[in-house]
Formats: sequence, C-alpha cells, structure tokens
Amino acid sequence: MNAQQEYKEVLMRGIREKDNIEAALRELTKKPIDSVFFVGCGGSLAVMYPLQYLMNLHTTILAVPYNASEFLNMKPKALTERSLVILSSYTGTTKETVAAAEMARAKGARTIAFAGKADTPLGKAVDYVFANDAPSGVTDSKLIMLYQIVFCLLDKLGFGVDYELLQKELSLLPEGLARIRELAKPEAREFAEKNHDQTFFMVTGSGINWGEAYSYAMCILQEMQWIPAQSVHAGEFFHGAFEILQEDTNLLIFQGEDETRPLTERVVAFAEQYTRRAHLIDTKNYPLDGIAPDRRGIYGPFILLAVLNSYSDALAERRNHPLKTRRYMGKVPY
Amino acid sequence: MNAQQEYKEVLMRGIREKDNIEAALRELTKKPIDSVFFVGCGGSLAVMYPLQYLMNLHTTILAVPYNASEFLNMKPKALTERSLVILSSYTGTTKETVAAAEMARAKGARTIAFAGKADTPLGKAVDYVFANDAPSGVTDSKLIMLYQIVFCLLDKLGFGVDYELLQKELSLLPEGLARIRELAKPEAREFAEKNHDQTFFMVTGSGINWGEAYSYAMCILQEMQWIPAQSVHAGEFFHGAFEILQEDTNLLIFQGEDETRPLTERVVAFAEQYTRRAHLIDTKNYPLDGIAPDRRGIYGPFILLAVLNSYSDALAERRNHPLKTRRYMGKVPY
Repeated sequence: MNAQQEYKEVLMRGIREKDNIEAALRELTKKPIDSVFFVGCGGSLAVMYPLQYLMNLHTTILAVPYNASEFLNMKPKALTERSLVILSSYTGTTKETVAAAEMARAKGARTIAFAGKADTPLGKAVDYVFANDAPSGVTDSKLIMLYQIVFCLLDKLGFGVDYELLQKELSLLPEGLARIRELAKPEAREFAEKNHDQTFFMVTGSGINWGEAYSYAMCILQEMQWIPAQSVHAGEFFHGAFEILQEDTNLLIFQGEDETRPLTERVVAFAEQYTRRAHLIDTKNYPLDGIAPDRRGIYGPFILLAVLNSYSDALAERRNHPLKTRRYMGKVPY
Repeated sequence: MNAQQEYKEVLMRGIREKDNIEAALRELTKKPIDSVFFVGCGGSLAVMYPLQYLMNLHTTILAVPYNASEFLNMKPKALTERSLVILSSYTGTTKETVAAAEMARAKGARTIAFAGKADTPLGKAVDYVFANDAPSGVTDSKLIMLYQIVFCLLDKLGFGVDYELLQKELSLLPEGLARIRELAKPEAREFAEKNHDQTFFMVTGSGINWGEAYSYAMCILQEMQWIPAQSVHAGEFFHGAFEILQEDTNLLIFQGEDETRPLTERVVAFAEQYTRRAHLIDTKNYPLDGIAPDRRGIYGPFILLAVLNSYSDALAERRNHPLKTRRYMGKVPY
C-alpha cells in the first residue's frame, strides 16, 4: 500500500465503526443525558472543538470541552450520572486524561474514549473505547468517529439533525480527503520554501475550525517544529493581537464555510493592507465531490486536516526537522 | 485625590451598585433562566471568564463565554427567552457587541451590559446597563459588579452560595487591592528592568485565573506594548507549547489559590529546570485582610489585576511605550 491508500484505509476504519458506535449510543442513551463533556489535552482536546461547535449550533444541551487537568481538579457541578464524557488520548496513557475518566465514572457519568490502542489505561477506564493506531490520518479518522457519535446522539435526543445524510457524506470523505491531500502538495512545498526560516507565526480561525487553528499553532508549529506560534480566534484578533502585525508578520488564516466565515473574511481584508506575509487556506478552494455547497461548512475541519497534513510534511522536510522530534515530551519527567 | 485614592474610589463605585444589581436581578429572575452567555471581545470578554469558572463550579446551568462576533454569527441554539446575556464593552460602541445585544434581545433573551458610559449604543441596546468610566481600575470595578451579579443570580436560583459573605468580602477589596497594588511596585520595577528588551513571552494560568493570563498576553503585552506574546492554559502547556521552552524563554506564570493550583505548580516545577526566565506571580504572596484562607481562591483574578496593574505601568515606563499607544485600534478602519 502506498501512503495514499494507507490514508484512505485509516479513514475507512473510522467509517466502519458505524455499527459499534450505534450499539454504544443505544446503550448510553437509555438514561437521560443533559450534559456532554469533551475531555483531553492539546491536540486530543482540540480535535473535539468542532463537536462543541456543532452541539451549540443544534442543541440546548450543555456541551463543554475541558483540558483533562482542569476538569479533574475543578470537577464541574454539571458532571453527574446524567452526563456523557468523551475522552481522547492518542497514547491512551496520558495520566490526567486517565484520572479524569476515573473521576467521571466515580461520579456516575457514562464514558467513551478514543485511544491508539484499546488495551491501555484509558481504554480500561471507560465504558466504551474506540481504538485506531496508524502512522498517519489518526486525527482525521477520530474526527469521523466523533462526528458519527455526536450526530447519532443528537438524532436519538430528537434534535432534528439528519444522521443518515451525515453517514452518506462521511462515506465520501476517504476518497475526497485523499484527493485534497494530494492537491495541496504543490502549495505546501511553496509555503515551506517561503516560510522555512521564519521564527514566529500567528494562526487564526473561527467557528467550527477554531480548534484547527489552535492545534496547528501549538501541536505542529510549537511541538513538532519548535517555532514560537500563537493562535488567536478571528473574532478576537481585532481586540488586541492585531497590534503586533507589521509588514513582515506571519499570519496563517484558516477560513471555513460555516456560519462564522465573515470573521476570517474581516481578518483577510485587514491583513491584505498591513502584512505581506499573510497566508490564507480557504476550504472553499478544495473539491469535495458529492457534498452540497450548503453542507460543506460542516466538513471544514476535515478539509483543513488534509491540507495541513501536506503543509506539515513539506515544512518538516524543508526545515530538516522531522515531525517526531521532541525535546521533552516522552523524554524527561514532568 | 492621589492615584491610590482614585483607585479605591473606582472600586467602591462597583460595590455601591449593590442595590441596583439586586433590583435588576429581582426583575430578571422573575422568569426561569436556564442559560447564561458572557459576550464581549478581547479584554472585555476575558474579564468574564472567572464567572464562567464560578458558574461551572457551582451550578448545572449552561454558562458559556462567547466572542461577540462568533456569538452573533453562529447563534447558539440555547439562546432563547430563557437566557440571560451579559455583555461588556469599555467604549460601549464595539459594533459586534452592540449587534450581539440586539440579536439576543430579538431572540427574547434578557440582557445586561457593562460599558464606560450608559449613553452609548450598547447601553441603549440592553435591559440594564452598568456604567463606570475612570482613568484606571475600571476592569477591577467591573469584576466586582460581575461577581455581585453572578452570586446574586446563583443565590436566587437556589444554588447554595453565600451571597452575604461575598458582599462582606467584596467590601474589603478596595482597601486590600489598593494595598496590593502598592506592595507590588518594587517587584514590578524589577520585572520591568529585567524584561524591557524581551521580544517574546509565554503567559500561563488556569482555572479562575485563566482569563487573566489570556488577557495579559493579548491586551497588555501585544496590544499595549507591541510584544509578541502567547497565552497557554497551564493544563495544555505540557501538550505542545512546552517544546519551545529553552533556557532564555520568558514564561510568566499566574498562580492562584483555586481548585486548579496543582496545574500551575506542575508548570513551575518544570520551568525551574529548563528556563532561567520564568517569572511566577503567586496570589498567595499578597495579603487580603479579613478573607479566610479557604476563600482566597475566589479572589485570585482581583489580586492578579492589582499586581499586574503595577507591572504594566512599570513596563510601559521602562520601555518608554505608553499603554495607550496604538497602531490600528481606533486609528484605521477595520
């Protein structure tokens, strides 16, 4: 299998969890649910931000993302036996996420986890675990499962989302995203060439794509490339951060097709006047066959993941700094 | 009046709103409330983060902070005639915040605003407005009013908080915070001397104090001093951001006495080993007469505001860059 086929296969694995997800949700929704917590750390937390967005858009249920340590220590009052807690850790060993799962279960909450392997401390600490270990595409695949879970949940709770349409659309993603990843390679190489020696980036986004801006700054640029980088929500940009913008300031703008597109459009218009180093990634520029224009906004995080996957590879290669290099993570005690 | 007396007077004004706040809440709680939204931009949004923390700690009510543009465009489903929306804008003219207030009222929500002046577009767009215009201490004073509102609300909704004790404690703050601001001046000058030429800061905090870390990075260091700066939640630090830490990386740690203190303690322990330029501001080191040790955590944001007020003044003076200098804000269209 080449990298392209492997990527599609990893995504397909997410889609093939449909029956398991539905069986889990059937059990989990037998008792009422009035709060949903998304719990994790760093990239494993940020991947769940789009789900909070979708829940706040479609439901009146309390849906809150929490860093696992914060969740564990502050113990939100709404965490009860009427809560569903969805946790995520790639290794399945992140100690604060495991402890958060145990705390949530002790409070009587129902729990689902995503981990690289089921046979890990996190996998053992929850009611249901979905495991997916692969060299790449793990986040994208996890996101497919998370979308299925949340739409299935909203469907069961009567919030009038079209779960069947979602399933049909998700089934188109492996082909569509693999194509986007390929399409993005030339622009990714160009980006890497232009930016390989840069020492600071601002990354902005909004709405369903905010989590991608957050995690690209922290988990790719900082963690995997050791470049100081700062994410700023596009709606917040004009209320502080923009004052440091000069003609040589790097600004990455992730623009989606969701309800909040006007927020990044405003940043783009400003950036065009004041910096030569703004770089826009607009999901609108990438094809997703079979998905209607008014439904594309939902899939913004997937498009960005596929595009940025190529960007990260190109940047790492051009900078001769492999994405797996670490100073501290997994190397020193903390 | 000297600056010290002026500061106390501004804080007192917040406390003297007690009767008005209670009258407003009596009206506003005549119908059920099952969601509270905190809406603003930048510093005016971040000042409300502690209230979300307190609500999540004490209630099962949905309580969510929103950037005004995000709120306006995505229109959360839970925004209904059973919602209370608390908005804030120092000028009272921030266009997205005014539009958000109008949108919320059109949905039947009840609205409260904080603005420098009542006779502003925001003041006119809401049910109740609390105005406070002053050369300094405005944020601290607003926070006093916000605490009164939220505790009064929780008391009325039966969430078992001690509103009377809060009132007693708030009445001690003008004296206590003015003293802290004075006490912090020598260390502030030392900080300014050591950091006046620095070009990048990470700022971290957690729990009830996270908003202060967020706004110090964005609204003071970036907006008012034009220094690239990044806030990172202490629980997130070890999941990405810490990889850029080297012995000369500036890291400001805001440590409180709330439930999440272990999160910043972990950062402090790590920073002691890997950077010479970590700077800890621990609320524990500042006296607040009359407030019991187990109640001090609640007032962390006030202590930090008072301390950082002196830091910002010292930094601006040492860098010869007045806090009111702007490149874009209020100067160019955007």
